Amino acid sequence: MERVLNFAAGPAAMPLEVLESIQKNICNFNGEGLSVMEMSHRSKTYDKIINETKENLKKILSLGDDFDVLFLQGGASTQFAMVPLNLADENDLTYYAVTGNFANKAFEEAKKWTNAVDITNSKVDKYKYIPEIDNSKLDKSAKYLHITANNTIFGTMYDKLPEIDVPLVADVSSNVLGKDYDYTKFALAYAGAQKNLGPAGLTVVIVNKKFIREDVRSKVPTMLRYDIHSKNNSMYNTPPTFAIYVAGEMFKWVINQGGVKELEKRNTEKANMLYDILDNSSLYKAFADKKSRSIMNVTFNLPSEELEAKFVEEAKKAGMINLKGHRVLGGIRASIYNAMTLEGVKALAEFMQTFESSNK
Amino acid sequence: MERVLNFAAGPAAMPLEVLESIQKNICNFNGEGLSVMEMSHRSKTYDKIINETKENLKKILSLGDDFDVLFLQGGASTQFAMVPLNLADENDLTYYAVTGNFANKAFEEAKKWTNAVDITNSKVDKYKYIPEIDNSKLDKSAKYLHITANNTIFGTMYDKLPEIDVPLVADVSSNVLGKDYDYTKFALAYAGAQKNLGPAGLTVVIVNKKFIREDVRSKVPTMLRYDIHSKNNSMYNTPPTFAIYVAGEMFKWVINQGGVKELEKRNTEKANMLYDILDNSSLYKAFADKKSRSIMNVTFNLPSEELEAKFVEEAKKAGMINLKGHRVLGGIRASIYNAMTLEGVKALAEFMQTFESSNK
Repeated sequence: MERVLNFAAGPAAMPLEVLESIQKNICNFNGEGLSVMEMSHRSKTYDKIINETKENLKKILSLGDDFDVLFLQGGASTQFAMVPLNLADENDLTYYAVTGNFANKAFEEAKKWTNAVDITNSKVDKYKYIPEIDNSKLDKSAKYLHITANNTIFGTMYDKLPEIDVPLVADVSSNVLGKDYDYTKFALAYAGAQKNLGPAGLTVVIVNKKFIREDVRSKVPTMLRYDIHSKNNSMYNTPPTFAIYVAGEMFKWVINQGGVKELEKRNTEKANMLYDILDNSSLYKAFADKKSRSIMNVTFNLPSEELEAKFVEEAKKAGMINLKGHRVLGGIRASIYNAMTLEGVKALAEFMQTFESSNK
Repeated sequence: MERVLNFAAGPAAMPLEVLESIQKNICNFNGEGLSVMEMSHRSKTYDKIINETKENLKKILSLGDDFDVLFLQGGASTQFAMVPLNLADENDLTYYAVTGNFANKAFEEAKKWTNAVDITNSKVDKYKYIPEIDNSKLDKSAKYLHITANNTIFGTMYDKLPEIDVPLVADVSSNVLGKDYDYTKFALAYAGAQKNLGPAGLTVVIVNKKFIREDVRSKVPTMLRYDIHSKNNSMYNTPPTFAIYVAGEMFKWVINQGGVKELEKRNTEKANMLYDILDNSSLYKAFADKKSRSIMNVTFNLPSEELEAKFVEEAKKAGMINLKGHRVLGGIRASIYNAMTLEGVKALAEFMQTFESSNK
C-alpha cells in the first residue's frame, strides 16, 4: 500500500523525506558503525546531534542566549506539574486561561501546589472560542498566566498572544513550528513532540533563563526541576536520544522549508481551504467560532452521528485516515500539521465536496 | 564502515536483526501506509503493538494476572521518586541497599518523602561488592527494601535475590532480560530501557498489582502515580509509542533466542571469558569482588591511567568502542548485554591478550 493521508491529531504525520533519512541511517549512522539508538549519550557524535538540534530550534524561533531549550520526557501532562512546582510557591497566585480539556487539566494540577485561578474559562460554551484576557484585571503579583496556544480537541487557537503584564507560560504542543509567535514573549513554553516536532516521548521546553529557579520547594522530585535539567544540558540522566535525533531531522526540514513564517502561510492556506467549504456548506458545520479558529486542527460536525461515521468510513476507503473527532467532542477533526501537504488537504477538500453532493 | 563492536553501558548495542526489521518498516509499517512514529496511540494497529509488547514481556518473565507492566517515561531517575511517593507515606520506614551511585541517588531521593534507611552501604569500600542483607535485622513494618540489581558503573550484581520478609523493590535497569530472576518475588521492579530493552526514553515498570495504591498522598503529580498509568494501560497521556514498538521487537528477539535462561547462560559465558583473563593477568586487575561480579558490566583497571587511555584508544582502532569506564570510577568497563555476541567478546578477549603481550 502507498502511504496514506494521515489526519491524526498526534502522534501525527511526518514528512516522508525525514522518515527516509532516518531509515537510511538506522543501522549505521553516517557510516559510524552504529545506530543513533545504540549511541552513548556521552559520545562526541551524540553530543553534536543534541547540540545541533538545540541550536537549530533556537535559530528557528530566533531565541538568544537568554533562553534555554530543554529536551525532557513525560509529555505536556508532566509539564502541568512542573510549571507550578518550579515557577511558583505554595500560596502564590497563578492564572490559567481554561480554553479546553488539556488547559483544564493543567489548571486542576496547578491547584495542588499554588493558588491557581481560572482567569478565563469557556467551558460553559463547550470551548468553542478563546476568551479575551483583560490585562487590567490581572493582579500583577501573579507568578504567571498559563495559556494553551492551540486546543487540539476543539480546533481553537490564539491568533495573537495576549498582551499582559504577568509572565506568560504556554502549552504550545499543537502549534509550535506551525504558527509564528514571538517566542521571546514567553517566560516558558512547552510542547509534547508528537505533532510538529517529532516522535512521542520527547517534550521540548523553551524557557527564559531568568525564570529558572534553584530555590524551588525542597520536596520537588529532582527530575521535575528545570534548574537540574538546564545545568546538565538535558543530560542529568539519559535523555530520549533517538527522539531528540528525529526532532533534529524535523528542525532541519523546517529550515529547508523556509522556516515557521512560511509554514504558517501554508498552514493558513490549507486551513482556509477547509473552512471555506464548511462556511459554504449545508451539510457541514464548523465547530469553532470564526475568531478563534485553529490552523492546525479543523473541527466540524455533520447533521447526525451516523453521517459522521459514514464520512469517516468513506474517507478511510479513499486513503484518508484518523478523521474521527476526539472522544470528548465527537464530530470530525482534520489535523493538518506542517507535514500534511497542500495536495493532501486538497484531496480531503475534494472528498468533502463529493461526499456532500451524494449526501444532501 | 562496518558495524563496530559497541561495549557501551547504555544506550547500548542492539541486535542487528532488530534494527533491520525496524528499518524495513520505518516509512510504512507492515504495508499500512504510515510509520509507527506517525500512528495514533488510540489506533487499532497501535493498540495491538502495545498489548502484544506487554504480553510478550509478561510471558518472558512468567508473570500472571497479578502483575501489571507499565510503559512510562523519565528513566530510572524518575522511579527514584515514584517508588517512595507511591509505596510509602511521609513517616513510613523504607530500606535502601546502597551498592552504587544510582542506588545512592535512589536513597537520597527517597529521604525527601519517607523515613529512608540505608540498611547496607558499601560506599566506604568503593562499592566493590554487594553486602549481604540480614533479614533478622529488618523491621517488618518497613514498606519496602530497594535494591539495585546490577550496578552498571561498578560491575557488581546480585547473583541471588535477597530472601526477606519486607516487600522487595528493584532497579533492574542493567540486567533485566539478561539475568534470570524470579520476578514474582518483586513488589515492583523498574528499568530504563536503554540496555537490554530498547531505546532510551522508555521506562518499564513491573508491578505486583496489590502494591498499586489509589490512596497516595494528595500532592503527588498525576503523572507520577502508578495507579493512574495502570488504570489507563499506560495511555493516560501519549506514551513513547515508537520506543515501545522497538522494545516489542526486542522482546520478540529474546523469545526467539530461547528466553532469559538461555541469555543468562550466554552472558555468563561471555563474562567468564573476560574474568578468566583478568584473574590470570599481571596487567589487568578486576575491580569487583568475585562474589559480586556482574555478567553485564565487566570493570577492571590497568596499572596507570596512561595505559588505560592507550587501551581504549587501540581498542577503538580495532573497531571496539566505548570501553572507557564511567567518569565516577575511571578504568575500563566492557558492557556485554544481550546484544553483544560471543564472537564480539572473543574479539575483545583476543585484543586484551595481545595488548598485554605488547605492554608488559
